[in-house]
Amino acid sequence: MTARIREVVVTPVAFPDPPLLNSAGVHQPWALRAIVELRCGDGLIGLGETYGDAPHLELLRGVGPTLVGLDPFDTNGLWRRVGRALGGVDAPDRHGLTGGSSPQKTALRVFSPFEVACLDLQGHLIGRPVADLLGGRVRDRVPFSAYLFYKWAAHPPADGPASLVGGLPPAGDPYPEALDPAGIVEQARLMIAQYGFGSIKLKGGVFPPGEEIAAIRALREAFPELPLRLDPNAAWSVATSIRVAEETEGLLEYLEDPTPGIAGMAEVAEAAPMPLATNMCVVSPADIPPGFTQEAVGVVLSDHHYWGGLRRSAELAAMCRTWGVGVSMHSNSHLGISLAAMTQLGAALPELTYAADTHTPWQCGVDVLDRPLPITGGAVTVPDAPGLGVALDRDALARLHENYLRCAIRERDDTSYRRIFEPGYTRRRPRW
Amino acid sequence: MTARIREVVVTPVAFPDPPLLNSAGVHQPWALRAIVELRCGDGLIGLGETYGDAPHLELLRGVGPTLVGLDPFDTNGLWRRVGRALGGVDAPDRHGLTGGSSPQKTALRVFSPFEVACLDLQGHLIGRPVADLLGGRVRDRVPFSAYLFYKWAAHPPADGPASLVGGLPPAGDPYPEALDPAGIVEQARLMIAQYGFGSIKLKGGVFPPGEEIAAIRALREAFPELPLRLDPNAAWSVATSIRVAEETEGLLEYLEDPTPGIAGMAEVAEAAPMPLATNMCVVSPADIPPGFTQEAVGVVLSDHHYWGGLRRSAELAAMCRTWGVGVSMHSNSHLGISLAAMTQLGAALPELTYAADTHTPWQCGVDVLDRPLPITGGAVTVPDAPGLGVALDRDALARLHENYLRCAIRERDDTSYRRIFEPGYTRRRPRW
Repeated sequence: MTARIREVVVTPVAFPDPPLLNSAGVHQPWALRAIVELRCGDGLIGLGETYGDAPHLELLRGVGPTLVGLDPFDTNGLWRRVGRALGGVDAPDRHGLTGGSSPQKTALRVFSPFEVACLDLQGHLIGRPVADLLGGRVRDRVPFSAYLFYKWAAHPPADGPASLVGGLPPAGDPYPEALDPAGIVEQARLMIAQYGFGSIKLKGGVFPPGEEIAAIRALREAFPELPLRLDPNAAWSVATSIRVAEETEGLLEYLEDPTPGIAGMAEVAEAAPMPLATNMCVVSPADIPPGFTQEAVGVVLSDHHYWGGLRRSAELAAMCRTWGVGVSMHSNSHLGISLAAMTQLGAALPELTYAADTHTPWQCGVDVLDRPLPITGGAVTVPDAPGLGVALDRDALARLHENYLRCAIRERDDTSYRRIFEPGYTRRRPRW
Repeated sequence: MTARIREVVVTPVAFPDPPLLNSAGVHQPWALRAIVELRCGDGLIGLGETYGDAPHLELLRGVGPTLVGLDPFDTNGLWRRVGRALGGVDAPDRHGLTGGSSPQKTALRVFSPFEVACLDLQGHLIGRPVADLLGGRVRDRVPFSAYLFYKWAAHPPADGPASLVGGLPPAGDPYPEALDPAGIVEQARLMIAQYGFGSIKLKGGVFPPGEEIAAIRALREAFPELPLRLDPNAAWSVATSIRVAEETEGLLEYLEDPTPGIAGMAEVAEAAPMPLATNMCVVSPADIPPGFTQEAVGVVLSDHHYWGGLRRSAELAAMCRTWGVGVSMHSNSHLGISLAAMTQLGAALPELTYAADTHTPWQCGVDVLDRPLPITGGAVTVPDAPGLGVALDRDALARLHENYLRCAIRERDDTSYRRIFEPGYTRRRPRW
């Protein structure tokens, strides 16, 4: 039952990402991730996955060597080592939409993939799935949600402006352009036909609110039984948010981040007929007291990548339980190690009463795993295998690392990428 | 790595308890506990310890048979089974000072010893101490505090009124009468000489506050370097509490439960120069939001016996960390399984920055274990052995069970016991 970490390998990878629109701009053609391996010798390897932007990668690489000799059961020791290696640095997020930065958030974000990899190792050492280290399964299948995006048909041609990001992936994605309600319903049909999702989230904040409400109405008509969510990523003012909330009464299981900040969310929450969810205003421990005390949110979208791994995500769920706040799960573009970690956590969290978000359909089958966990009937079956229940495909990892080396993207920047094609484009929150 | 629970054995025990005074009366001559064994066959046994009062015992015995077949890693499943067996019953506490009752508190209290026993089993199955299942040791030695009580020299003679509780234990305790500052200082000297404690708690609420302040001053003079705590168990009004807090400025590391209720504690906390601690007003998840929001307490004394076991106590610590509240540890009269569980939890909790309470010196060497964990230099060394690191002494268990059968006590009732000797005695909160 004992092993020590002998070597830490951090491999940045890039994989094709479709031109998905959001309130900040449009997804670049390559999404970045970092694959973390904790190697203990004798083929024993623990896996983690996290953001691949350059500043984060540098922090991961700084921490890596300091973990040699660590007992994978000693995640408290891991936390101390990560803290010492970071030395209280405050590194801004460069990969998404999780609010401002702090030394605490930096430490939780860097700690996360190593913690997941330690739990993977623990599971391998004791012959048990990670869910068993988190209290055991409360469900055998973890439900995920269809994650719809307004999108372009394809990235603009690689000659010309797109060459700025190192060219385009060789193939496009199977989802046609979606810029109106009909396009969104068609996307939902395609995605549900393939994955069987039982609930639907629409990424909004792209078009004026009336158009997005129309899309929600069209989805309700096409899928009368499926719970719906709308997430404009804080693109609306408080007044707009309240108006949209009133107009969508009875249509949404929750409205996600309509407006920026805890105070604004609290104002909307008081008037809105449905719960508000967030992965933007309550995104770190420091946000919990003000967020919960002001009753700004009814649902927290947890995300182990920035909440500090699986055990701390379970702690977050315990806090939500204690304050009567619901728990759902957030996703950025990710690969199969993250999906496996989300599945193990989702299996063990009684508090997770909503289907989790995932970008999995948008990665179009690309992965670093030999056998990625499939989504069928809208859910992932929790594997019985030890640890996370997944293993690397070394050839695939090498190919995705080649992508990374070849592409010119080193930080996620949806706004600048969109500006290549629409020079006047700006990011504004709120926009409406 | 797999095993199933085959048999659940709950054994009530009684052990001699000295005549310790508190705001509710005086300790009865026998303290009750229940020893829980989860037996998996092949000598594999998980141990837990909890309250031994009759209503609690009945609940434990109702739950026991429903656990047969359970995987010890499935503590989520344990929670569901306990919940089903209890059927939402609201059983008042009959063993101490933990406030009102609720179905949630009942479930957490009944769940606790089984959860501890499951973690003990997990540790045995994987060859690891329980602390490793909680994130790994942050300390090799868990500090405990001297726990001083005003006390009578001995229980009044067994002929006459004491026969009402089934007679007296055969031997007394080694601590002389302590009814004034000199007696308390003498008790501290004896206890520290034997155990090496590095901090001191005085159970107050027995004499008018001025006398107890004098005892604290005498302790400060006798032990200039040791942190001191005073716990009157809510015997004081808000006004009295504020006055005592002001008079003891600079003398106490914290003042514990001076006055009843969250609102009163919040009023005192605002005026008091030292943090307030509690094991009376924040004693269940439902108390956390009002207690923390009103800033009623600076330190929560966690207690896995009523917070629902070790993992939920770790969750409590995470909430305290998130709200900037300190963590210490509460104790009722207990035996060595509880001490081992407190030690494993204390080893793994970074948030535990105060020495924990323990009644261990008052059990005067009586235990159900073959080799109880010793307190030396004021701390317990975390055992390297798997699980809790302790094992039953079957002869000792049988003897303590005989005590239980022989003694007439079936519920803790310090007030009624004191009334035997002082018929006019009443319990009043606040008294001063």
